[in-house]
Amino acid sequence: MISKKIAQALEGSSAIRAMFREGKEMASRYGAENVFDFSLGNPATPAPDSVNKALKDTAEKMDPLMLHGYMANAGYEDVRKSMADNLNKRFGTSFDVHNITMTVGAAGGLNIVFKTLLDPGDEVIVFAPYFGEYKSYASNFDAKIVEVEPNMTNFLPNLEKLREKITERTKIVLINTPNNPTGVVYPEKTIEAIAEILRQKEKELKKEIYLVSDEPYRELVYDGAREIFLTKYYRDTIVGYSFSKSLSLPGERIGYVAVPDEAAYAEEILAGLEVSNRILGFVNAPSLIQQVVAKCVDEKTDLVFYDKNRRMLYEGLSDLGFTCIRPQGAFYLWMKSPDEEEERFVQAAKKYGIIMVKGSAFACAGYVRLAYCVSPEMIERSMTGFKKLAKEYGLKK
Amino acid sequence: MISKKIAQALEGSSAIRAMFREGKEMASRYGAENVFDFSLGNPATPAPDSVNKALKDTAEKMDPLMLHGYMANAGYEDVRKSMADNLNKRFGTSFDVHNITMTVGAAGGLNIVFKTLLDPGDEVIVFAPYFGEYKSYASNFDAKIVEVEPNMTNFLPNLEKLREKITERTKIVLINTPNNPTGVVYPEKTIEAIAEILRQKEKELKKEIYLVSDEPYRELVYDGAREIFLTKYYRDTIVGYSFSKSLSLPGERIGYVAVPDEAAYAEEILAGLEVSNRILGFVNAPSLIQQVVAKCVDEKTDLVFYDKNRRMLYEGLSDLGFTCIRPQGAFYLWMKSPDEEEERFVQAAKKYGIIMVKGSAFACAGYVRLAYCVSPEMIERSMTGFKKLAKEYGLKK
Repeated sequence: MISKKIAQALEGSSAIRAMFREGKEMASRYGAENVFDFSLGNPATPAPDSVNKALKDTAEKMDPLMLHGYMANAGYEDVRKSMADNLNKRFGTSFDVHNITMTVGAAGGLNIVFKTLLDPGDEVIVFAPYFGEYKSYASNFDAKIVEVEPNMTNFLPNLEKLREKITERTKIVLINTPNNPTGVVYPEKTIEAIAEILRQKEKELKKEIYLVSDEPYRELVYDGAREIFLTKYYRDTIVGYSFSKSLSLPGERIGYVAVPDEAAYAEEILAGLEVSNRILGFVNAPSLIQQVVAKCVDEKTDLVFYDKNRRMLYEGLSDLGFTCIRPQGAFYLWMKSPDEEEERFVQAAKKYGIIMVKGSAFACAGYVRLAYCVSPEMIERSMTGFKKLAKEYGLKK
Repeated sequence: MISKKIAQALEGSSAIRAMFREGKEMASRYGAENVFDFSLGNPATPAPDSVNKALKDTAEKMDPLMLHGYMANAGYEDVRKSMADNLNKRFGTSFDVHNITMTVGAAGGLNIVFKTLLDPGDEVIVFAPYFGEYKSYASNFDAKIVEVEPNMTNFLPNLEKLREKITERTKIVLINTPNNPTGVVYPEKTIEAIAEILRQKEKELKKEIYLVSDEPYRELVYDGAREIFLTKYYRDTIVGYSFSKSLSLPGERIGYVAVPDEAAYAEEILAGLEVSNRILGFVNAPSLIQQVVAKCVDEKTDLVFYDKNRRMLYEGLSDLGFTCIRPQGAFYLWMKSPDEEEERFVQAAKKYGIIMVKGSAFACAGYVRLAYCVSPEMIERSMTGFKKLAKEYGLKK
């Protein structure tokens, strides 16, 4: 008696969330110190002190009717201005208030973008491996996810396959760099190549194809890599952002969507985003936290913390003989399963209290994802288990 | 190039939001003191002091990783427990943690309920006049709104018509008491009569029909009327609540959905709500404000303030010869248009700076809605304009 789609969703459920729950259960059964939970992208560095200060200041000084009241469905004007100014300063863009819609996190943002753009049967192209939730978001609007097969050598987008998969039904090409689950950061020339393919296809098919960039990890890049902002590479680009990772606020549900004026139908899209925010039931991004992120938009999370974790985990696992993709961004490590059935490997790891997510949850079997947004101590202590696991699978060293 | 549904939504847009924007424009053109904006249900009493205190205390004392981090998609367990305890204490229910899902306001709550229950083509019965957004929420899931014609004498549900409209496609009967837009509060015997009809129809049609109660105005009742909680009248009841009005937090987007264990398929529905929260992009209700409402769940808004406004507006307009439904709850006054075209009446009122919403926005032409969640001074000063309007329409007195 529940809807067919939800009955289906319940069967599939989220492998990530399932592992997260299992980790919590194991922790209560065996003791938290014996569980090494690499399942969820829940930041491990606290929000910067300035967030706490901004919270208290705002609660203290702002008129409560304004602070907790309704505003335009796209958000407070001054908050949107802060977002626009910040982007303009960093990336040389020319956004103004009207280009920014404040959203209930990046998930809320992607849903209003999809609601605004997608008719039933439209296709959204994604590059495997990809965040499994994208499929649910497309399904909300009866659109179809079209997967581009992974490039198993470096996990950069397979551009030849992209070209083949674009059809008259393609409305969106969705990219996510720095990438979840692989930790790969697309180099500029990859972005340029994608843009060139899309421009050709727009011309050939005489229709708009939107490049939607899901950027919750924008600032999480290592080894001196440069943050890239996509609107300057391709006209019809829409950017979704979240403060979940950059300010460690995932539970607060706060982000924005930016649409440049030069994008085709920008005006209609911006109006559509505002109305979608309303009718999908978000109404507006939470008000107090809008004000807080406006005050803290120049802050950054503790990159050094994640960088140390990254090195420790990558080097530790590589030394044990595991094959890992060296992460360049986000806070995920993508590791080849030494078992041809990666689900079996995930189960085997649980014996040692280690929780990982299977690659097939990201449409890429044979790999596993480890989220290293955890305490360094946990990574260190997990190595005993990984050592046994490596031995079990007869890995060299 | 935007989706058909959104293109349509943009044409229709929200009459309420349109008037809200127009009010703001008029205020900047003619001066705020010359505009009397009765358009939007934006509370006029500030959040209780305890909210501010809870905000600062929580920010001060709670571990920021917990305070701003992900939790289960249904919300923090301790927060859900507070909601359950509060309902049990007040209404003699027996909710526990698992019966409560924290939501992004009542709008978010209704959307996850609809997502969980509705297949395309399913019908949702509403009693006109009703909050226009319900139609958009049903459309999100390709379900159909079926309107029961208004009972123009007292604006209580037309029960004979309800009986006629229930079919095999009926999945939900949606009620909203205290009512937006009429301010009517359903008496207990009306609730009992609806319950009886639904029980008969469930038996006759051999299927579940869920009574979904949208209760953002639950506590806003006057003249000593009793707050009513619906689960004890009908087994298959689902309650959606919001703290927007009771704690004056509409911008914060915080509420909950309660599903009693005795409801048919309760377990599946609760699982469905959690997964819907995730895949519709809410992920979870905003974390900090969850903690705050848990601490303030026993607080009430300033009912005396609204009650005074209610009397002043109702008596003022009645004295001028307007025909009004005496409001018993919420903060809306429902007034008969003295012009057979209520849209013309709304336009005429604008000459005097008065902003109202036309009844046809609530599927009930011939009436207008005035939200009296405004300052008493504004009501007082608006009377000069209303007097001219009454004269223009030749009303007696």
